[in-house]
Amino acid sequence: MTYSIAIHGGAGLTCPEDLGQEREELAREALAKALNAGNKILSAGGSAMDACIAAVAIMEDDPRFNAGRGSVLAADGTVRMDASVMDGATREAGAVCGISTVRYAAELARKIMKRTPHVMLYGEDALAFAKDENMILESENWFITPYRTEQLEEAKSANCIILDHEKASKGRPKGTVGAVACDQFGNVAAATSTGGLCNKRPGRVGDSAIIGAGTYADNKTCAVSATGHGELFIRSHVAGRLSDLIEMKGLDVVQAAKHIVFSELDEDVGGLIAVDSNGQITLPFNTGGMFRGWQIANEKPVVAVWRNE
Amino acid sequence: MTYSIAIHGGAGLTCPEDLGQEREELAREALAKALNAGNKILSAGGSAMDACIAAVAIMEDDPRFNAGRGSVLAADGTVRMDASVMDGATREAGAVCGISTVRYAAELARKIMKRTPHVMLYGEDALAFAKDENMILESENWFITPYRTEQLEEAKSANCIILDHEKASKGRPKGTVGAVACDQFGNVAAATSTGGLCNKRPGRVGDSAIIGAGTYADNKTCAVSATGHGELFIRSHVAGRLSDLIEMKGLDVVQAAKHIVFSELDEDVGGLIAVDSNGQITLPFNTGGMFRGWQIANEKPVVAVWRNE
Repeated sequence: MTYSIAIHGGAGLTCPEDLGQEREELAREALAKALNAGNKILSAGGSAMDACIAAVAIMEDDPRFNAGRGSVLAADGTVRMDASVMDGATREAGAVCGISTVRYAAELARKIMKRTPHVMLYGEDALAFAKDENMILESENWFITPYRTEQLEEAKSANCIILDHEKASKGRPKGTVGAVACDQFGNVAAATSTGGLCNKRPGRVGDSAIIGAGTYADNKTCAVSATGHGELFIRSHVAGRLSDLIEMKGLDVVQAAKHIVFSELDEDVGGLIAVDSNGQITLPFNTGGMFRGWQIANEKPVVAVWRNE
Repeated sequence: MTYSIAIHGGAGLTCPEDLGQEREELAREALAKALNAGNKILSAGGSAMDACIAAVAIMEDDPRFNAGRGSVLAADGTVRMDASVMDGATREAGAVCGISTVRYAAELARKIMKRTPHVMLYGEDALAFAKDENMILESENWFITPYRTEQLEEAKSANCIILDHEKASKGRPKGTVGAVACDQFGNVAAATSTGGLCNKRPGRVGDSAIIGAGTYADNKTCAVSATGHGELFIRSHVAGRLSDLIEMKGLDVVQAAKHIVFSELDEDVGGLIAVDSNGQITLPFNTGGMFRGWQIANEKPVVAVWRNE
């Protein structure tokens, strides 16, 4: 059985000049590290879900990605994170929105899946649950980097509410982090985690918290984690739709993902990563670049950022 | 052009004996009133969205339905409502979760759709937005009825967390309210509103707040509002899946809804109402009963509760 993993660190990129060489190199290193963490679990016979959570946790800790530490700031200067996970073997799912101070939001989503009868919790009550579960908490300031503070100020002075990729925080990595994996048993899983949109209205919930929009997994079809303009992804229920395209139209995961990203979504809005239960991977995006990486069994891992890589 | 409307007031029913004659009659009256409110708008050339909001508002105000006043109580004794709307003409959507004191939650979801760049807001921040928009607020106590207080006590003493339809508040109307409509211009819309599950963990978000799970609308396919065991409906992204079945498999709205409710969902978990842009209506459910009603243009309105009506 082939096992494989794919990860993304957001698709909000325009061109190398805007990103800057140093940030690009640091992001590539972090992607390689995340990929390695996930692959190690898979190669040892671990579960797709464990691999996804491990890869996402590395990116959540890395201040260069918009998730966990280094999340973008809402209009009120706070960090409010969204995350979700889904297990393709059982179609169990967990999700959280508006969570603060929890270091690993995707892991919290998994705990909601496993330890409550519910799929999704929000805000303060989700935090109370995280505390009951003894999850790792950090101070609110621990999450906030000078880079994100500056970015919020810039967005505020341009009076741009985040949705405009060109104006808001131009060329700066934003978006989401996510992972999808297929383990040695042919089970697939997906995890997505994000700080959302810079200068968003506090209380906004994005697609990363929505099962069927930002995250979906079903062994019969695929596991998928999306990144991009969350509102559009919710309205098109992108992740569930990808699964439906495979199941109902008989497309394979590569064809179906390509169709959604290049024929259905507006241009320059984002991308997704997906894997099926044969370990087949795809990572299409329609922006200037998407932080991404993948590894198939013990083949060489690949990290990429721009279109023609 | 035929216009039509369908409504539901929840599918959490077992049998007439459990519901009681008085509650059944009062519910039937309220359904007729809601149907009339929606139909009046449609017959005057109003929009499907306006008709849905008007019909839902009547049920939100009626203490017999689990939405607005008379919402079931969370484990901490509070009312926390979820709602969402979607417009099939534009595929714009709005959603809110964990909202308190706002009298008309579905109308709030519409305001989020129309007056913010976002699809979904949660909790206190959604409330702040509602206040900015001068929406009608009521005290927390205004929402709470003796019936729901008793129901929570019963659920607590039985230590049943809500998901078990048989044990939790046996035979008592629960669930959701919702409406779907097709207007004279062939535009469809859907609205869903609920207090969620009795004795739920505070902070739980159900399918009624999730675009693609409890609510979806697309003129190309249908408008749908679901009711039932929310966690299952999220995991199967029921509303989006219905739309996909019509689009991708070429089924009509009646066939597609029947397939989901009777061949895909577990038994005794709920139902849905749906309409396509020809005004074709369907209202399948797999529980003992679903409060429901429908009216096609100036034909006689129909109200029904049990299976064989």
